[in-house]
Order: sequence, then C-alpha cells, then structure tokens
Amino acid sequence: MNRAGGAPTRREILHAIGVMGGASVLYQAMATMGHAAETQFAGPPNLSGARPGASVLVLGAGLAGMLAAYELGKAGYKVRIIEYNNRPGGRNWSLYGGDTYAELGGATQKIGFAKGNYLNPGPWRIPYHHRSLLHYCKAFGVALEPFIQLNHQALVHNSKAFGGKPQRYRELAADWDGNVAELLSKAIDNKGLNAVMTTEDGEMLKEALRTWGMLDKDMRYVRGPASAARRGFDRPPGGGVDGAPIPSDPFDFRDVRQSGVWRAFAQHMGHERQTTMFQPVGGMGMIGQAFARQVEGKIRYGAKVTKIDQSGGAVTVTWTDVASGAVETAKADYCVCTIPLGILSQIDVDVSPGMRAAIAAVPYSNSVKVGLEMKSRFWEDEDAIYGGISFTDQPIGMISYPSGGMHSAGPGVILGAYTFGPASYKLAALPPEQRIAAALDQGAVLHPGRYKEQFSNGAAVAWSRSPFTLGCCAQWNEDTRKEHYQTLVAVDDRIVLAGEHASYIGCWMEGALLSSLDAITRLHKRALEA
Amino acid sequence: MNRAGGAPTRREILHAIGVMGGASVLYQAMATMGHAAETQFAGPPNLSGARPGASVLVLGAGLAGMLAAYELGKAGYKVRIIEYNNRPGGRNWSLYGGDTYAELGGATQKIGFAKGNYLNPGPWRIPYHHRSLLHYCKAFGVALEPFIQLNHQALVHNSKAFGGKPQRYRELAADWDGNVAELLSKAIDNKGLNAVMTTEDGEMLKEALRTWGMLDKDMRYVRGPASAARRGFDRPPGGGVDGAPIPSDPFDFRDVRQSGVWRAFAQHMGHERQTTMFQPVGGMGMIGQAFARQVEGKIRYGAKVTKIDQSGGAVTVTWTDVASGAVETAKADYCVCTIPLGILSQIDVDVSPGMRAAIAAVPYSNSVKVGLEMKSRFWEDEDAIYGGISFTDQPIGMISYPSGGMHSAGPGVILGAYTFGPASYKLAALPPEQRIAAALDQGAVLHPGRYKEQFSNGAAVAWSRSPFTLGCCAQWNEDTRKEHYQTLVAVDDRIVLAGEHASYIGCWMEGALLSSLDAITRLHKRALEA
Repeated sequence: MNRAGGAPTRREILHAIGVMGGASVLYQAMATMGHAAETQFAGPPNLSGARPGASVLVLGAGLAGMLAAYELGKAGYKVRIIEYNNRPGGRNWSLYGGDTYAELGGATQKIGFAKGNYLNPGPWRIPYHHRSLLHYCKAFGVALEPFIQLNHQALVHNSKAFGGKPQRYRELAADWDGNVAELLSKAIDNKGLNAVMTTEDGEMLKEALRTWGMLDKDMRYVRGPASAARRGFDRPPGGGVDGAPIPSDPFDFRDVRQSGVWRAFAQHMGHERQTTMFQPVGGMGMIGQAFARQVEGKIRYGAKVTKIDQSGGAVTVTWTDVASGAVETAKADYCVCTIPLGILSQIDVDVSPGMRAAIAAVPYSNSVKVGLEMKSRFWEDEDAIYGGISFTDQPIGMISYPSGGMHSAGPGVILGAYTFGPASYKLAALPPEQRIAAALDQGAVLHPGRYKEQFSNGAAVAWSRSPFTLGCCAQWNEDTRKEHYQTLVAVDDRIVLAGEHASYIGCWMEGALLSSLDAITRLHKRALEA
Repeated sequence: MNRAGGAPTRREILHAIGVMGGASVLYQAMATMGHAAETQFAGPPNLSGARPGASVLVLGAGLAGMLAAYELGKAGYKVRIIEYNNRPGGRNWSLYGGDTYAELGGATQKIGFAKGNYLNPGPWRIPYHHRSLLHYCKAFGVALEPFIQLNHQALVHNSKAFGGKPQRYRELAADWDGNVAELLSKAIDNKGLNAVMTTEDGEMLKEALRTWGMLDKDMRYVRGPASAARRGFDRPPGGGVDGAPIPSDPFDFRDVRQSGVWRAFAQHMGHERQTTMFQPVGGMGMIGQAFARQVEGKIRYGAKVTKIDQSGGAVTVTWTDVASGAVETAKADYCVCTIPLGILSQIDVDVSPGMRAAIAAVPYSNSVKVGLEMKSRFWEDEDAIYGGISFTDQPIGMISYPSGGMHSAGPGVILGAYTFGPASYKLAALPPEQRIAAALDQGAVLHPGRYKEQFSNGAAVAWSRSPFTLGCCAQWNEDTRKEHYQTLVAVDDRIVLAGEHASYIGCWMEGALLSSLDAITRLHKRALEA
C-alpha cells in the first residue's frame, strides 16, 4: 500500500524493484510495464544504509555535481562541493543585464540587456522525454514554459536558392510534401514500384498521398485552395466584401529542394527536438539556481582544482583559491568528479592508466552563441513570428526568436547565432564585439530593414574560450565509445566521474543528471561493500 | 513623421493609405509592401467624421458585436448592444466550476471543475496569422500563452490498424516519412520518374530524401540509430554504465498507412493550425470578458430580439426581456446585426428579399465538446504528453490535453470529445451525462487503466442545442457563396450584418472580427453619405 492507502502506483512498484535489484533489473521491469521507451529515469535513487559519517567531495557545481551532492546528502553522506566559478550551474547559465563575463584571452563583456532579458549561452531547451530533468525542475520549483522549436512562419534562407531570398518554412514545407506526394503517385502509376507493392496497396497509398500532399483530384500539386490551405495565400481569407481568398503559387520543386528545407524538417522531427519542448521562465540558469538552493552552504566557490589523490584510504583534493592564489586541500572518503574532460585531463588525477587514457581521449566541440537585444519585437508585430527558428546557410546557422514574453512590448533578445563546426572557431577568433557585428550582418539578410535599425546591444559566448570548460561538450565517436566509455564511467576505487561526458545523451542536461544518478548509485554500492 | 519623430512605420503608411483610398487600395498597397500574404488586417479602422449624435444599435454581444460597438463608439457614434445571454462573448466562452448551462431541451449542467479549470465549448485556439484578434487581445490586455497543437508524443488510434492499439504520433510520423522516402528513392532508381526528372535531379533528390527520411547508406528505412533518432528507442540513451541506447523497430508500412496518420499530418500542417498557436491564460472566455470591459455599460443583457424594422428613416428593434417576458423597443439611425443566421432567419427582419434569402440559405454545423476533469495530470506525469492532440477514429474524434498549467499538480481538464458530422448529432441526442460517459468509454481506449480511475467530473456542450446559436457555425459552400454571400454582407439601407457567417474565415473569431471591421467601415461610409 502506498501513502494514500490505495494500490501501489507504477512508480512505487518500480522504486521497490530498483531497491531490490538495481538498475538493470529495474530497466527490465520498466520495459515489461511499457515504460522503458520513455526514459531511463525511474525516480530518485535509493541510497539507503549509508555509513554514518561517510563523506564525499563533489568536484563541480554544475547540474551533475549538485544533483550528486543533493541525493548523497539526503542519504546521509557528508558532502562538500568544490567549484571553479563564483556561481552555481556550470554550463546551465543565463547572462542577464549587469552580468560580467570574462573569456580566455581576456575579453570581458558587461551585459547590457534590459531587465528580464537574457542569453542562454549553454542549454536552451528541454525535451519532453528528459524525465529526470523535468522531475527535478518540478521538485525544486522551477517554473517552465513551452519552448517553441518549429515555427511554420519562420524563414529558411539558402544563399544558393531563390536568388538568396529567404522563404517561409510553411511554403517550402507544403511544397516539399506536395511534390513528393505527386512524384510518388506518378511512380505508382508508371509501375515504378510494382516490384515492392501490389496494385491495391499502390491505390490505397495514393489516396493517403492525396490528403497528405494536398493534391487535387488529378493527383497534382498545383495552385489552388488545397495547396493554399497549407502554404498560405496571396490574399488570405477575410471578412465582408473582399473576404474571398486568393491562393498562392507553389514554388518550383527544384528551388524547394535546393533550399535545403528538408534539413529543417529533420531538425524539427528529431526525437530531441520534438514537441513539446520547455524552457524555464526567466532563463535556463533558473535551473542551476534552484539546484543550488538545495545544496545551500555546501558549495566552495572560486576554487580551481589542481590535484586529486586517493592514496591512503581517502580522497584528497587540492585546489587554488582563484582570488587569493592560496592553496587548500580537503579530504573525504569518496569523490564524485564532474569536471569537464578537457579541464580534467590537465589535472593530476590519481586514477588507473585506463581511466586517464579515457579522460584524454574525448575531444570537445565548440559553439558560439550570440544574443542580440532588439528595441522592439518586430518579428512578432510585423512578421507574425512567435518563437521558433529561422535557418540560414550563413555561418550564424540560425536565428531563434524568444519563446518567453511573447506579445509583450519592449525589447527582446534574439538568439542571433548558434554556430557549429568551423564557423565556431572562426567566430571565436574574433573579439566579442566583432562576433556581434557578424551576427548582425548575417541576420539582416533574413530581416532586412529592421534588424540593424532595431539593434540595441549584444553578448557573445565562444565555448572554446570558456575558462571552466574549454569547449562545449564531449564528442564521442563509435571508436572512443568502444575503447574508453566503460572505463571512464566505472568506479575507480574511491572516485567516480559524472557529467554529460559520462553519458549517451551528450551535450544535454539530462545526460549529466542520468550520469550522476548512475554514478552515485554505484559509488554508494561501493561504499556499502567497503 | 510619426509620434516618435522618426520615419513613418509601415503601419502608419498603410493607415494613411486606408484613410485616403479605402480597403481595396489599402490591400494593393499592402501587397506591394509584401504584407498581404500575412493578413487582411491593417490596423483599426478609420471612422473619422461621424455625424454628432448618430446612433447605432448592435445586436449581439459576441466578438463581432462588441468590436463594432467599441470602434463605432470611439468614432463618436451613440452605441447600444442588445444581447440574449446574461454574459458577453457569445461563442467565445469558457465554462468554469460553479457555472450553470441550460441547453435546449431543458438539460441543465452545474459545472464542477476545480478553481482555474475550464472547458472552452467554442473557439479554443488562435493562429499566429489571425492578426486582428491578436491585435485586440494585446490592446485589451488579454494575456496569451502557447496552445500546443502538434505533439509528437500524443497518440494516433485507428480501430482498424495495429489491432486497435494506439501508437505514438512520432513513431508513425517517422515511419511514414521514412517509407515514403525509401519508395520514392526506389522509383528514381527504377527509372519510374524518367519522364519528369533528369538523372541528375533524381540523384540530388535522393540525397535530400536520405536526410529527410532518415534512410541508411543504402537508402533503406530500417531499424537503427537513424530511424530511432526520430521515432524513439526501445531503450533510450542514458547515463553511466547502461547508457547505450537500443533502437526501436519500425512498423510495417501497411499498418502505418492504415493508421491514417497522414490525416493527422494534414491537420497539423494546415495554415489554420500551424505553429505558433495561442490561447488566453485562464480560458478563451477571457477575450469576451476583455472586449466587454471596453463597452462597459452599453450592453443590455437577457434580451431576445424578435423584430428588426427600418421603416421611417430609422431602425427599430423589438425584444422580449427573457426574465420578465416584457416587450421593449429601441430606435437608432443604424443597426449592426451579428445574430447567427439560424436565429436571425426566425426573426422578422426588414431587409431586401435577397438578403432574407441569403439569411435562410446557410446551414450551421453541429459539434459536441466534452470536458473531463481528471484528478491528476497522469498524461504528463506518466506519459510525457504535454498539451497537443491524440486522434481516434471513434466518434469523440480526438482528445486534447490542456496547454495551460502544464507541470502543475492537481486536477486538469482534458477535452474528451470534439466531434464533427453525424457523431455530433448522435451525441447531442443523449443527455449530457451520457455524452460524458461515452467520452470516458472511448477515451479509455487511448489511456486504459488511468482514464476512468482518474475521472472526477465533466461537462458537455452540444452546439445544436445551444439556445443562442442553434448550431456551431455557418457552413457555406461554393454555390451558396456565389448566390448569396455578397448580398448577405452588403449594407441594406440602415442595416449591415456581421459575424463569422459574413466572412471567408468561418467558425473562427478572426472571421467575426474582420467581418465586423469591414461592415462598420461600410456602414460609416453610408452614414457619411446620408
């Protein structure tokens, strides 16, 4: 019986199984109950039976570290967190007006955003299936609101299509579906698929294609009420005397293909970016703040770890006080280390050669994000774009319109660049104000007339210049996974690593949390066996 | 120069053109400025020069009527609204706990929802391109939040597919795209499209299809990391030792086609249901409330209009006081009549035979909506469904999960039925409690185990039994449009009709507003010529 006196819930049963049998038995039970496909999260870990007085040093006050400290602390462990920055959250972080950010190389930005506006340099959206993150947001009182990923009214810009003129996602998407449907229908008629499909199946598929692709009675995708009802109108329907709509002309299919809109589909349809996504009200950093409140008083800020030793039946961590340069140490029975691998590989760590090799084996990606504060929300008022993403083949990669504060008056912050690959290193090489200028130039191609006129101030974060991560997130490949992953995540005597780099959900907060839960569950087991 | 002293904005230019040239010149100007495809709304109407003391009777305090009264009042007309109900809003309306609703036939429901919960019997979502509605929501202080239409985690249920087992939209959508891509690629290889496509175009299209359809290197849609990254996993990626994901098996394409998921695509991709949609915070009825505040003191409630006369150089409206049965009349120079056609056709209206024929010519649709309050938000906590719609081929048509209050604890109201066509009349024939029972039975097929267990109370509105509309909304067809539409919307001496029925955006609030703006603009012109 559960607390309410009724039959046990699925969660309660799963929790009981987890206590008895551990993670993989639990996972089988979840699969049997039809839940496995949803998540690997089955509720907070059970860490009962901790030895009184056992202590843990947690390195890093990012989400993985703070979650480890929170759950271990709840279980009875004596916990302390050592953190390099003077704030909690790690990559979970928002820059607000009045904040200062100094990057490697010395460039320092004083953020000028209006009150309430922000840039999320790191994570910025939460998938519905990241269940541990959503669980702890609820438990720790983080208010969430929808994050708009797909926006039919947003733009797709390809400098090699439509003479470089940006087009609406809805028009390109409608024309893609319509043309694909018409072509496949033609192929069925031409018996091009007789080898794989019966005539009857072909006819039934054609009926489905007609509805899906907005084809006319002759199975053609043409200008008319059907295509306009998806791609939009030359004159939309209205009221009164001039109410009758005028359909719009579909594009030439070659241009549609050339636009690369199918890449945007692939983005939006990906499991990690499907609806419904969320963001915290007021900035992603609200999550780090909320986690920090749960471990209040346990974080030592401004401490740069230089050595991790585990000789003599204890873990000894040495750090330098960033402000004073003083060297300090602390001892504990165990250590959960969440320091990003690029930093950790430069620290003297007393682990097996295999784990040291694993730490050194995984490169980090780079990425640049630029926030542009605009005096008005012209994309809403004039273009009817509310949240979502416009794509471009320029180095900025995309523009994302704020999902928060929609319909409000006053300034708003557009994500003016979110770069990947070579573009990131090129932008990172520029001083922040030149990154902002480049983002403005490129963004103005999508919103000519208004973009530069409405610009007020900006902020730019290049992750390769981040002093606390030296990059964005861990980039595993098939070979490194095979050779190093299990060694990296294994408990090494008294030390265990955790973070997005110790997961298969790299670059996502959920990976950091699931990694942390798994790591502390195994460390706890190790402690019970000691 | 505009108020701020800078160059005039596009809106200001358009407003100036509208004042000088009227609606169709304005429309041409908008088209030239690249705005026409967005909306037929170009800002509030210019009604300057009203004759002092000129008066207008507005019939109906729905959105069309209240907007007419607001704008005419602002222009200097003496305005009064006559309304049948004891509340403003018309079909813009939310039912809250404590409300009472009596339908034709006498059945009366006392709504039992918890505080803050509601059912929107009428409109429930606002497209981003319904610019006049969004304009007035902003102007009148109606707080909006995203309405989630498309939800990849929601279900598609077809009793004739998958043995009647509901499946996730994301799985079906991924498999649809993947199979269509693979088939079209095969057809290109088999030269089934040689007549319409060069070999080079075919090869380039194949590369696009590979990305779009998540095909493997051999252009096949198969179980593996590519398809799983869209349709989901048997075991999703996680953290630590058991982090590696296990892909899921795609469905048989015949089952996917049979599921009718392409109908759901067509729904979500339609211009009227594209992202980003909105709803007022706290219920759609907030809009009617906000409009009513703008015409405070001008609405005569509880008045059933029985006669509209325009002899003798004035409009005389006669009504019965619903409570007392007393007959009253009022006189004015002009009349804006927004009474739904099914009601208006039963009233003695002094207009041309052509307009009377038009009023009688347009049938109304029916629809039934059922709200089911559940004790907990199990669809969020257990199924990771946040807002959006699950489709079924059962009479209820769909289940929609609330877009408001996501992640909160406590009871939530599911839209448990939104029926069309014959199903509506069948459900409407049942007493409300049996409609609710039917919705529970059918909804339980999608959420077995939890649906009936968590049910607390419900509400059901059958629009064919609505005393103030006798139906849902006007159903024009090509023939009736041709024969009657222009006559219906024309100014008939001193009377003009307005409402969604006098628009090409039938059944939408935007149609009511654009119709109203056009009607009062022409009535004002008529008044100036008088």
